[in-house]
Amino acid sequence: MLAFAATSTSDRSPGLFQVDEAMVDDIAALVAAEDRGMVMNLLVDLHPVDLAVLMERLPEVEARQVFAWLPPELAGDVLAELDAVEREPLLVGISGERLRKLIDELDTDDAVDVLSELPDRRVADVLPKLEDTYDLTALLTYPEQSAGGLMAREFVAVPSSVTAFEATEAVRHRARDIDEIYSVFVLTTDGHLKGVVSLKDLMLSPADMPLEDLMQTDVVSVPTGMDQEEVARIMERYDLVSLPVLDEDGVMAGRITIDDVMRVVRTEAEEDMQLMSGVSGAEQPGDSVLRISRGRMPWLLVGLIGAGLSGTVIGTFEATLEQAVVLAAFIPIVTAMGGNAAVQSAAIAVQGLSSGKLWPGDLMRRMGKEMLVAIVNGILLATLLCLTIFFLQLGDVTRLVLTLGLTMFTVILLATTNGALVPFVLKKMGIDPASAMGPFVTTLNDIIGLTVYFIYATALYL
Amino acid sequence: MLAFAATSTSDRSPGLFQVDEAMVDDIAALVAAEDRGMVMNLLVDLHPVDLAVLMERLPEVEARQVFAWLPPELAGDVLAELDAVEREPLLVGISGERLRKLIDELDTDDAVDVLSELPDRRVADVLPKLEDTYDLTALLTYPEQSAGGLMAREFVAVPSSVTAFEATEAVRHRARDIDEIYSVFVLTTDGHLKGVVSLKDLMLSPADMPLEDLMQTDVVSVPTGMDQEEVARIMERYDLVSLPVLDEDGVMAGRITIDDVMRVVRTEAEEDMQLMSGVSGAEQPGDSVLRISRGRMPWLLVGLIGAGLSGTVIGTFEATLEQAVVLAAFIPIVTAMGGNAAVQSAAIAVQGLSSGKLWPGDLMRRMGKEMLVAIVNGILLATLLCLTIFFLQLGDVTRLVLTLGLTMFTVILLATTNGALVPFVLKKMGIDPASAMGPFVTTLNDIIGLTVYFIYATALYL
Repeated sequence: MLAFAATSTSDRSPGLFQVDEAMVDDIAALVAAEDRGMVMNLLVDLHPVDLAVLMERLPEVEARQVFAWLPPELAGDVLAELDAVEREPLLVGISGERLRKLIDELDTDDAVDVLSELPDRRVADVLPKLEDTYDLTALLTYPEQSAGGLMAREFVAVPSSVTAFEATEAVRHRARDIDEIYSVFVLTTDGHLKGVVSLKDLMLSPADMPLEDLMQTDVVSVPTGMDQEEVARIMERYDLVSLPVLDEDGVMAGRITIDDVMRVVRTEAEEDMQLMSGVSGAEQPGDSVLRISRGRMPWLLVGLIGAGLSGTVIGTFEATLEQAVVLAAFIPIVTAMGGNAAVQSAAIAVQGLSSGKLWPGDLMRRMGKEMLVAIVNGILLATLLCLTIFFLQLGDVTRLVLTLGLTMFTVILLATTNGALVPFVLKKMGIDPASAMGPFVTTLNDIIGLTVYFIYATALYL
Repeated sequence: MLAFAATSTSDRSPGLFQVDEAMVDDIAALVAAEDRGMVMNLLVDLHPVDLAVLMERLPEVEARQVFAWLPPELAGDVLAELDAVEREPLLVGISGERLRKLIDELDTDDAVDVLSELPDRRVADVLPKLEDTYDLTALLTYPEQSAGGLMAREFVAVPSSVTAFEATEAVRHRARDIDEIYSVFVLTTDGHLKGVVSLKDLMLSPADMPLEDLMQTDVVSVPTGMDQEEVARIMERYDLVSLPVLDEDGVMAGRITIDDVMRVVRTEAEEDMQLMSGVSGAEQPGDSVLRISRGRMPWLLVGLIGAGLSGTVIGTFEATLEQAVVLAAFIPIVTAMGGNAAVQSAAIAVQGLSSGKLWPGDLMRRMGKEMLVAIVNGILLATLLCLTIFFLQLGDVTRLVLTLGLTMFTVILLATTNGALVPFVLKKMGIDPASAMGPFVTTLNDIIGLTVYFIYATALYL
């Protein structure tokens, strides 16, 4: 039973519905004792998603054993739910015949995901023996992150001359192959998309009604080459559960369903967050230490070089610093405030550009507004800092208040505006604007902030 | 026509399908000329989503005029697509009668969204006159971000004793009210959920088949109080397009459809990104300067206080600094590397906890792995920094190499491990782990890093 309506959810971890640590341990023990019956008993009611979680959590040997015990249709579904890195160990020792059976159980979009991550030798071996060899060979040619890579070849298509009754028969005919059917696509004889009829409309129409009169003709469709992120945006925007994909000749090549797109949205959000945090290569918690280290090193190096430049700025003004060592104590304030203000305005620009609320032409208006925000915040923070210095009677109060008041205001103004500018520039250059929010913008503003600070300080102290 | 399959998409901005700057200007001019016919001509084929974009981009007066010209069913749909801040100006001058008509066109989930943002006085005025007064009054009692706040009251429910034919008749009966029907819910006489039948299965079954035999009984459902983020996770996890919501007595109270959840996923991702960037209050590009300033100020203050503490650390070691002013030049390196390393490991922990790949019990294993990553990266970066100091013959090379090599290694080790630790702790405390990635973790590591640095420096220099 999957229904957990009655159970309290407050203390359940997200993602942890049926499988918990105790269950993983129990199953590992039962597998070690080779108690197949008991294991299958425990697993029989689990959803493939939960089985996939179990596979990830079990030690490799036990996972492989449980996977081998699963009937092919269930094992296939589990395979489809797993990430590539987690799938690999389960497929190492598996026979060609079993692999063929598992893949044959999958819809073509999932089958092609599994195939595309197998070693070439295994693909060459198994592909010709599959039921959908032709469709899968075609799907394998599309880039994984494109509409073509997301789509499945399973869809119900009829000519516009058929009646509602005949279209229903067509659905019936395909029902065994296709898990989710939300609509019937109406195609011309040469495969061009003419319209779409929802299952609901089909069901509610008189049996002899021609689809010609029933179909909606304003159909949203996408080309096979469209990036998956844009596909997701379109399905979200137009509230679609199923989206036809057309090849370069306008012939319907497949359809994308909403469940695949939900995964895209989640994955892209994770990638953005990693980009913002200076992690590359889509790091997963299960990755090896060296792989993780390699994915993080590039941005750490960028950070090191950037900080080296900041250090050079400080070194250049060593004479000023020797004059008043107290100035060193305010270095973290200058860098932190610049970095924070820049990241804030960058975040809003990145989101606005990505959701379509900001258009590239809005740059000047956006910068103007950010400048106003910066003036308000800059004055407030500069005043606060000056009052603090005054009341704590830090160093040479007059000079320090002047230096830091001016620095704070200037730095916040520059950082807030360049934070909003950089995403627009990156977008124009075809780079993901989210990169603006990684170590790049903070490092840039460290350098700008320190330069401003020491120029003011030198003018006032030397 | 919405089909843009044939047009190239590469140079089209995301979110910008039918409406562009030229069109906004044209329509503004036509409205000023009071050319209603021409405006309606241009707008007649637009999807409500695109009309909503147009409303956002038009100057307020023109937007209000276009909105007044739209027929009620279209105006209602546009209202449902707009965010609350954008909706408000359109509703200012509108008559109670027109408002009633617009809301009556909406599904109850959208209607309740519109109602919940109206001034109380207007709600009291319009609510009793609506078609769905009873349902809407009930929906208004649920928190907006809960399953109850997301759900619509429109769903098709039948007792299990009916046949497939009778269930189809029930769908037909409700078809006019309900836009999207994917399944029929089977309820007991007292409203408890017994099962669900997909439209596809209903369509393909013999007319006299009892639903009892047709329905699936392992139905995923959620309680009205569940947080919308968890609802989204469940629908994504189990590939659902429609999810029943049960009240505290287990009675079916409504259903949530996938389109609402797509919006939740997007909004939550945006909120996380803002949280990471130190922006509070779900800032939108259209917000006023003062509102934006207010939303950003709290984290800037936290940053200022944190940086003040960092400054205090530096001030404490003023004697050491006076001994060797060159040490000041490495302050940015110490703070940048600590911050970057902490944010990297925090990002992975936050994502792992949110996707369910990491469980709370994984803390020690996770910290162990991060420590290994930190040792690898710490040794590499410390070596690189020491070599640079050596080759550039900076300051008193031996002491500087020793100080910075040790500092770099220690700081990376501490930052990487506390970056992974903080999200687990926050989760345990019931705080969104994504907060760990805002200014908090970087500020914390500035303080730790500088303390470590000056302790080593004092030991070696004084």
